[in-house]
Amino acid sequence: MKQSIKSRHDLVAFSEGILSGDRIVLSQAITIIESNLESDQKFASLLLEKVLPRTGNALRIGITGVPGVGKSTFIETFGKSLIKKGKKPAVLTVDPSSPITKGSILGDKTRMDGLSKDPSAFVRPTPSSSAIGGVANKTREAMLLCEAAGYDVIIIETVGVGQSEIAVRNMVDFFLLLILAGAGDELQGIKKGIMEIADAVVITKADGTNEKNAAEAQGIYQQALHLSSVPPSGWQPTVLTSSAVTGNGIEEVWSTIVKYTEHIKANGFFQRNRSEQNVSWFQDYFALLLKADLQKYESLKSVQKNLEQALSNHSITSQAAAEKLLDAYHDVMRSDKS
Amino acid sequence: MKQSIKSRHDLVAFSEGILSGDRIVLSQAITIIESNLESDQKFASLLLEKVLPRTGNALRIGITGVPGVGKSTFIETFGKSLIKKGKKPAVLTVDPSSPITKGSILGDKTRMDGLSKDPSAFVRPTPSSSAIGGVANKTREAMLLCEAAGYDVIIIETVGVGQSEIAVRNMVDFFLLLILAGAGDELQGIKKGIMEIADAVVITKADGTNEKNAAEAQGIYQQALHLSSVPPSGWQPTVLTSSAVTGNGIEEVWSTIVKYTEHIKANGFFQRNRSEQNVSWFQDYFALLLKADLQKYESLKSVQKNLEQALSNHSITSQAAAEKLLDAYHDVMRSDKS
Repeated sequence: MKQSIKSRHDLVAFSEGILSGDRIVLSQAITIIESNLESDQKFASLLLEKVLPRTGNALRIGITGVPGVGKSTFIETFGKSLIKKGKKPAVLTVDPSSPITKGSILGDKTRMDGLSKDPSAFVRPTPSSSAIGGVANKTREAMLLCEAAGYDVIIIETVGVGQSEIAVRNMVDFFLLLILAGAGDELQGIKKGIMEIADAVVITKADGTNEKNAAEAQGIYQQALHLSSVPPSGWQPTVLTSSAVTGNGIEEVWSTIVKYTEHIKANGFFQRNRSEQNVSWFQDYFALLLKADLQKYESLKSVQKNLEQALSNHSITSQAAAEKLLDAYHDVMRSDKS
Repeated sequence: MKQSIKSRHDLVAFSEGILSGDRIVLSQAITIIESNLESDQKFASLLLEKVLPRTGNALRIGITGVPGVGKSTFIETFGKSLIKKGKKPAVLTVDPSSPITKGSILGDKTRMDGLSKDPSAFVRPTPSSSAIGGVANKTREAMLLCEAAGYDVIIIETVGVGQSEIAVRNMVDFFLLLILAGAGDELQGIKKGIMEIADAVVITKADGTNEKNAAEAQGIYQQALHLSSVPPSGWQPTVLTSSAVTGNGIEEVWSTIVKYTEHIKANGFFQRNRSEQNVSWFQDYFALLLKADLQKYESLKSVQKNLEQALSNHSITSQAAAEKLLDAYHDVMRSDKS
């Protein structure tokens, strides 16, 4: 019998619901994770701790590419092919906002309709607001809940224009870059840094009159990647072509991922990478907690405000101001008996 | 009479040397800034505080562009033209290392030979190692010292491949993107994000057979920039062409910068931007100080080590580990009587 959720912070009901694979409970739990309320944050932390032993068993795949490359269509086709193999894919997104325009790039329009409706899949749209800890942190926590709910392939989608790639790279096992081939635009618009962190490149929309361009681009990218130094995984990145229309190449993407996973499990990189990722996320969280801690004390807030005033007036160096704030923080800690 | 420096941390001698424009003292002071020794860091902080009233009067210009675009040649020619106008330019570099290859991109080879030797200019090569606080922080502090030494145009050079642009953008008044025109490669390889933060784009090497390409590229970029939203400065970015060989266009770059500066001083952006930059650097410094603070206590170090071990074993969530470390930090602060 299903346990019903009696309150927003019913730990037993939430953890049992998630572990039994209840999609509605999973969705509600992710909503709590995305919340900025302190009580929700605390509950999310307890819930994650509780389901932790059941996490970590999925294969984590990051997918990026510039707008227009066909990410949603690719993931829809790819996800359905996984379901046919008996897999349970979950799709999450990290949608960075432009630092200048503040607008959402991926948007919150409903996409991947077919996949969303399939009972074997779970599709979660972009969190609507960036929160304490940032969208990336929330996505990582949502990923852990999806794993606890039994999803065994987690796909994290992001868009190839910002820093979010690094954040996503840092939470997945395999990172896939989607590229659109077009006359004369090979290697165009792709940041060198993103090529460096990709385990495979897929040229999308390789169908019809575009097939020849895609094959050409495949050769060019493969050559470019061969010139790069071998990444820490010891895996030589592969370039593939695919078409969501004909379905060509989708199978090869999965077999490449399987081959890659076998490779990094054999050479120890898989475990080492996950351990390093955990430590790195811990450091990120800690920085966030410290930031929140400073907001807890009224006296510190006023010190901070005065320092910022002095900085605006150019009457103190940034370094000296930082030292004063640290001293004030120490003082508050010393006198705090809680 | 010149004050001689009696010890590495002779505050009076250093500040007087810098304020009198002594290039050797300035160089030595920057070396101390770049040092990671705690005693050097403390001295640097005092020195900056001491010369602070004499900083802030220079025009701060950031210059970026991919390797091969001709940054050094441009800066050499541009710097010499500034000297002819009676200006005193200082050139500093922020050289990010690739996160993967760890190699330096700009290298430490001696460049800008003519400018280095000119008594009106000061050229400081890239710090050899990334240090606590990062290369960008060190560069910013070096900039303040150069201002105190009387340099009135500070040029900060970086390379258009990483995150360093954002750091440099955040310490200058005017940000210049250099671009190389070539058949069919307009808008290529330039990250959208960098175009967004540039106040002007200069197409370099606009001479000989390349002149036509450069003019074409100028039109294309100007059009692209007109489609972007107007930045917070209210300044519509300009596209220029230049040649270090013929000297064409160098004058226009300077007059554009002068026009821009008048514009942002009139609309208040100049002061607002500098104030915001100070606050933002203060926050960065504070994060660094906290990090260093955690390394000061043996008990905290061992807590941290144990948590990282647990994270590697996947036996604790990153969030819970961060909470435990914050608790331990609070405990240490409470019992610390210093």
